[in-house]
Amino acid sequence: MNEKETTKKVRRSAAGSIAAPAKKSSRKKAADTAADVPAEKVKKSRQPKEVKRTPVRIIPLGGLNEIGKNMNVFECSNDMFILDCGLAFPDADMPGVDIVIPDFTYVERNADKIRGIVITHGHEDHIGGLAYLLKKVNVPVYATRLTIGLIEGKLREQGLFGKVQLNIVEPKKTVKMGCMAVEFIKVNHSIPDSVGMAIHTPAGVIVHTGDFKVDYSPIDGKIIDLARFGELGSKGVLALMADSTNAERPGYTHSERTVGESFDRLFKKGEGKRIIIATFSSNIHRVQQIINCAVRYNRKVAIFGRSMINVINTAIELGYLDVPDGVIIDIELMNRYENERIVLITTGSQGEPMSALTRMAMNDHKKVNITPMDFIIISATPIPGNEKYVTRVVNELMKSGAEVVYEAMYEVHVSGHACQEELKLMLALTKPKFFIPVHGEYKHLKKHADLGIQMGLPKENIIIAEIGNVIETDGLTMKVVSQVPSGRVLVDGLGVGDVGSIVLRDRKHLAQDGLIIIVIGIERATNEVIAGPDIISRGFVYVRESEELMDEAKAILNSTLDSCSYAELKEWNTLKGKLRDALSDYIYQKTKRSPMILPIIMET
Amino acid sequence: MNEKETTKKVRRSAAGSIAAPAKKSSRKKAADTAADVPAEKVKKSRQPKEVKRTPVRIIPLGGLNEIGKNMNVFECSNDMFILDCGLAFPDADMPGVDIVIPDFTYVERNADKIRGIVITHGHEDHIGGLAYLLKKVNVPVYATRLTIGLIEGKLREQGLFGKVQLNIVEPKKTVKMGCMAVEFIKVNHSIPDSVGMAIHTPAGVIVHTGDFKVDYSPIDGKIIDLARFGELGSKGVLALMADSTNAERPGYTHSERTVGESFDRLFKKGEGKRIIIATFSSNIHRVQQIINCAVRYNRKVAIFGRSMINVINTAIELGYLDVPDGVIIDIELMNRYENERIVLITTGSQGEPMSALTRMAMNDHKKVNITPMDFIIISATPIPGNEKYVTRVVNELMKSGAEVVYEAMYEVHVSGHACQEELKLMLALTKPKFFIPVHGEYKHLKKHADLGIQMGLPKENIIIAEIGNVIETDGLTMKVVSQVPSGRVLVDGLGVGDVGSIVLRDRKHLAQDGLIIIVIGIERATNEVIAGPDIISRGFVYVRESEELMDEAKAILNSTLDSCSYAELKEWNTLKGKLRDALSDYIYQKTKRSPMILPIIMET
Repeated sequence: MNEKETTKKVRRSAAGSIAAPAKKSSRKKAADTAADVPAEKVKKSRQPKEVKRTPVRIIPLGGLNEIGKNMNVFECSNDMFILDCGLAFPDADMPGVDIVIPDFTYVERNADKIRGIVITHGHEDHIGGLAYLLKKVNVPVYATRLTIGLIEGKLREQGLFGKVQLNIVEPKKTVKMGCMAVEFIKVNHSIPDSVGMAIHTPAGVIVHTGDFKVDYSPIDGKIIDLARFGELGSKGVLALMADSTNAERPGYTHSERTVGESFDRLFKKGEGKRIIIATFSSNIHRVQQIINCAVRYNRKVAIFGRSMINVINTAIELGYLDVPDGVIIDIELMNRYENERIVLITTGSQGEPMSALTRMAMNDHKKVNITPMDFIIISATPIPGNEKYVTRVVNELMKSGAEVVYEAMYEVHVSGHACQEELKLMLALTKPKFFIPVHGEYKHLKKHADLGIQMGLPKENIIIAEIGNVIETDGLTMKVVSQVPSGRVLVDGLGVGDVGSIVLRDRKHLAQDGLIIIVIGIERATNEVIAGPDIISRGFVYVRESEELMDEAKAILNSTLDSCSYAELKEWNTLKGKLRDALSDYIYQKTKRSPMILPIIMET
Repeated sequence: MNEKETTKKVRRSAAGSIAAPAKKSSRKKAADTAADVPAEKVKKSRQPKEVKRTPVRIIPLGGLNEIGKNMNVFECSNDMFILDCGLAFPDADMPGVDIVIPDFTYVERNADKIRGIVITHGHEDHIGGLAYLLKKVNVPVYATRLTIGLIEGKLREQGLFGKVQLNIVEPKKTVKMGCMAVEFIKVNHSIPDSVGMAIHTPAGVIVHTGDFKVDYSPIDGKIIDLARFGELGSKGVLALMADSTNAERPGYTHSERTVGESFDRLFKKGEGKRIIIATFSSNIHRVQQIINCAVRYNRKVAIFGRSMINVINTAIELGYLDVPDGVIIDIELMNRYENERIVLITTGSQGEPMSALTRMAMNDHKKVNITPMDFIIISATPIPGNEKYVTRVVNELMKSGAEVVYEAMYEVHVSGHACQEELKLMLALTKPKFFIPVHGEYKHLKKHADLGIQMGLPKENIIIAEIGNVIETDGLTMKVVSQVPSGRVLVDGLGVGDVGSIVLRDRKHLAQDGLIIIVIGIERATNEVIAGPDIISRGFVYVRESEELMDEAKAILNSTLDSCSYAELKEWNTLKGKLRDALSDYIYQKTKRSPMILPIIMET
C-alpha cells in the first residue's frame, strides 16, 4: 500500500466529520515487522516510483524559536486548518503585558478556507490564544474530551461559550479537513488526554507529535500509541514535526509514577504534620497521585487556588480524577481535622506573586497560616525566568519554620517532554522523509535536528523553520517558499494589540529613570510666558531630598526661556526641543540619569 | 594553652599592623592529632573552667537572607573593624537601579571606633561597596595582594586612588584591630588570593571562612590551609561563620582543574575552528587554563570585554597569570592569523546585554563576526535570574551557525563554593562552640544550620541571623541582643540613596500601564478654566489607533469640570482628585488598565 492509497483510504473513511481509520489490525502487523527491514528497501518495494503530488503547505505561526504560543496552519488546495493556538507569557522586556498571542493576520485573510482547529492538549501554550482567534474566525474546534472541557472554561470566561462548535474526538479517530484528514494519536504528557496528530494529505502523511513523552507506566494506564506511530512510519511518513523542549537532555524522562513513589516516602516523612503540595493545576495525574497518597495515609484533601479548583472540578466531572467519597473537604471544614489528617493541594509552584502558596508564604492567606507543623512539597521545576520567585517563596516558607522539599534530589517532579532517547525513538518509529523540529527555542530545534542527522537523516531534509515561513512539499521535496505575516500580539487588559513597540519603549524608559514634566503657559496673542515653567517628576528622585537639584533645574529652564527669541517662542516644537535638551544635559551631568522629559505648553 | 592565652599571644605578636602568628610549627602538630580526640575531652583538658570575658559583638550589615553585599562589623570595647563591603545587583523589582549597597548608618555613627577594613577576596559582592564606604569613613584597608590590586582599580574609577591607605597582607599574617586581631588564612575560591579570617578577640576566636571551597589540586598549587583551621579548632573556636552558598548541594565541589581537562577535550573537538570562551573576568585560574590550552594547541589569545582586559592586566602585572611571550595578541592583529590559530577570551558568560559576547551574538560587534567556523564555550553557570539572557545569547550564536558548548554535561564550569561535604569538613576542623551560617538566602542558611545539627552542634548554639542583628558573645553564651539600622541603599547613576521605595513604586507603576497627564489652565482671578483639559499619554496605548478612547476621555474630563462648583474649582487638590477618579474609572472600565494619572493645573 503506498502513500497515495493510504491517503485515499483515510479520505474515504473520514467522509463524516469524525471516523475511525480503516483496517487497523492489518496495519499493525506491518508496523511490527518493519523495524527489521532497512527503510529504503521498504520504500522501494512499496513505492516503485515517486511522483509529485498536490502541494501541501505548513505555516508555523508560533512555537518556533520560542517556548509558547504554539500554532500551525496546514494548507492544501483550497483547504486550511489550524493545529493548536496557544499563548506565551511576557518576558521582562514587556512590562504591563498580560499575555502574548500569535499574529492572526494570515488566518483572518484566509478565513473562508479554514475548515477547523485541532488541539493537541489543554495547556495554555496550546489553547490560550484560542478565544482570541475564535473572535476573529469562528470555526469548529476538535480535541479530546478533557481538552474540550478545559477549552469550554476559557470560552466561558471570554463570553464565547455556546457560540463555538466544540467537537470531542477520541484518539484513533480522524477528522476530515477538506482534502486533508487529521488522525488523533494518544501520547503521554503532563496533562491527560494529550494527542499527536497524523495529518493525511494528498502529498503524504505529516506526523505532528504534539507535546509528548514516553511513559510506560502512566497513571491512567494509557501508554503512548507507539504502535500507530510505527505503523505510519512503516507505510511512509512524509514529514515529522516533533516536540523539541527537552532535546538538550540526554537519556529518558522518568515516568510520572516515580513522583508517586516519592510522595509515598515524603508522606511517611511528614507524619504528624500538615502536608502542603504545590503543583501545576493541569497536572491531573500528579493530583491523582496526591489523592491516592492521602487515602493511603488517611488524610483529607483541601484544594487551594482558583485554577486548581477549576481544573480539579472539570477533571472530576469528566472522570479524569478518581476521588473516593469524602476525601476532598471544603476549605472551611479544615479546622475540624488535626493537622496530621490534612493535605493541601495548591497552586503557586512557580512562585507566582498572587498564587495561594505565595500568599501563604507571605503570611497573607486568610485560611492558612504556615508553622513548623507544616511539611511543604513543591512538586515542580521553576520555568526559566521564575527561579527567583520560587526561591523567594521557599525562603519565606522556611522562615515560618516549615520543612520545605523542593530540590531535584527528592524526585518530586518529572518533565512532561521527551528527552533525547525518546526523541530518537520517535524518529526511528516514524522514519520520516523530512523532519521539522518544533516547540522550542533555536537551541532546542538545533539539538533536535542534530539528533536527526545522527540517525542518518540527510541534512537537507531537515528544516529549522521560523514563524511565518511557508514550508511547501509536493511529496518529493520540502522547502521554505515564502513568508506570511507573523509575530507577537500583546494583550494588556482588554487591549489586544494596542501595546506595541513604541508603548513598550516608553514604559521601559519610564521604568528606568522615571519622568520629568515641564509645564509652561503661553499667551496666544502676545507669545508671552504667563505661567511656569513648573517641574513635576515621578520615579526620578525623592524630591523632598533633592530640592536643590530641582531648583537649579528650574533656573536652567528659566534662562533657556529668556534666551529664546520671539520667533522661537512661536515655534513650539523648537521651543520644546530646546527646553528638553537643556534640562536633559543638566540632569545627566548631575545624576548620570536620563529620565523621560516631557515639555507641555499650554496656550491660553 | 587556653583561648585567653592564644588571644594574648596573638595580641603580642600583632603589635605592629601586620605580623606573623607565633609558633606555627607546634600548633600544626596539635591540629594533626586533634581529629582523633573527642571534642569535649580536648576542651575539658585545656579549659578547666569557663569564665565570662569581655563581650564581643558581631553585626552583619549584609549577606544574610540574600546573595550579595556581604559586610560584617566586629566590635569589642571601643574598637570596631569591618569585614568585607560588597554590592548586590538589583532585582527585577528595582528598575533603573545600577547597584545595591549596604546601609552604612551604623558605621558612620561609630566612625571614630573603626580601626580598619579587612577584605576576604576581590569579588564584587565583597569589595563593590568599598568605595562608597570609604567616602564616608576613610580607614585603612587590609587584603591580599591581588585583592588590593582589584580594589585599586575600583578606587581609581571613583577618584579615591591615593586617598586611602591600602595594605597588602599575606595569608598566615595577622592585622591588629585595637583589642582584636585578624589572621588571614588561605582558602580556595573562584578568584585567586582568597582568604578566610581567624578573628582573635578577648572573648575567643571567631573563624570567618570567607567564600571558600576545598580544592586539592588548585591551579596555583596553594591548597586551602585546612591545617590551620584544624589547629584553631583544636585550641578552641568560639564561633564559626561559614559560606552557605552551596549548602543545598550534596557531595563535593569539583576541582578547578577538571575544567582544564574539559578545555583540553574541547580544544581537540574545536580543531580547525576559531575558539571563543566566555567566563567570569575574575576567574583568573580559568583564564590561566585557557592560556595553557592555547599554548598547547599553538593558538594565539585575544582578550575582549573591558572588565576582562582590566583583570587580566592586573593579574599579569601582579604575577597571578603566567603568559608566555607572544601568546596574547592585540585584537587589531587577529586578522593576521587563521581562525584555527585563535582563541578569544571574552566577558558575557551571563548574557549581560552590553557584554562582548552578547554583542557578538547580536551581530553588533565591530571586530568579531560569528560564523559556522566558530566553536564557542560558555564557561559559567547562569546566576539565578540570568537564565533567559544566557539562553538568548546561546540561541543567537547558534543561529549564526556556530557550535556552542554550554551544558552542564561538558563540565566547562565548577562552582567556587563548598558543597555539603566540604562544609562538614570545615565544621569538623574548627569544632566551633557557636555557629553562624553566612553568605546565603534563608534556605541556604537553614540547610547549613541543619548540617551543623546533624554533626552534633546543639540547636541553641546555632544562630540564623538577619542583617542589623547585634550578636553578642562573652565566650560562654551568644545571642542576638539588639538591632542597628540596616538595609539596602540603591545606587542609580551618581545618586546614592535618592531612589527609595516611593520612586521605585512610581517607576513600577509607570512601567506597568504607562502614564496619562491631564493639563488644565485656570485663571487665578476668576477661577475660570481658560485652557484644556488636554490629555497627554506615554506608555499607555498607541494613541494614533486609540483616538476614540482619548476623545471620550477628554469628554469625561470636560463634563467633570462642568459639574464642578466655583468652590471646587478653587480647591485644587479636590479638583485634581475628581479629575483623576473620573478618568481612572473610565479608563479601567474600557481597558482594564490602571495607568498613572497626573492632573496638572496651571495658574495664570
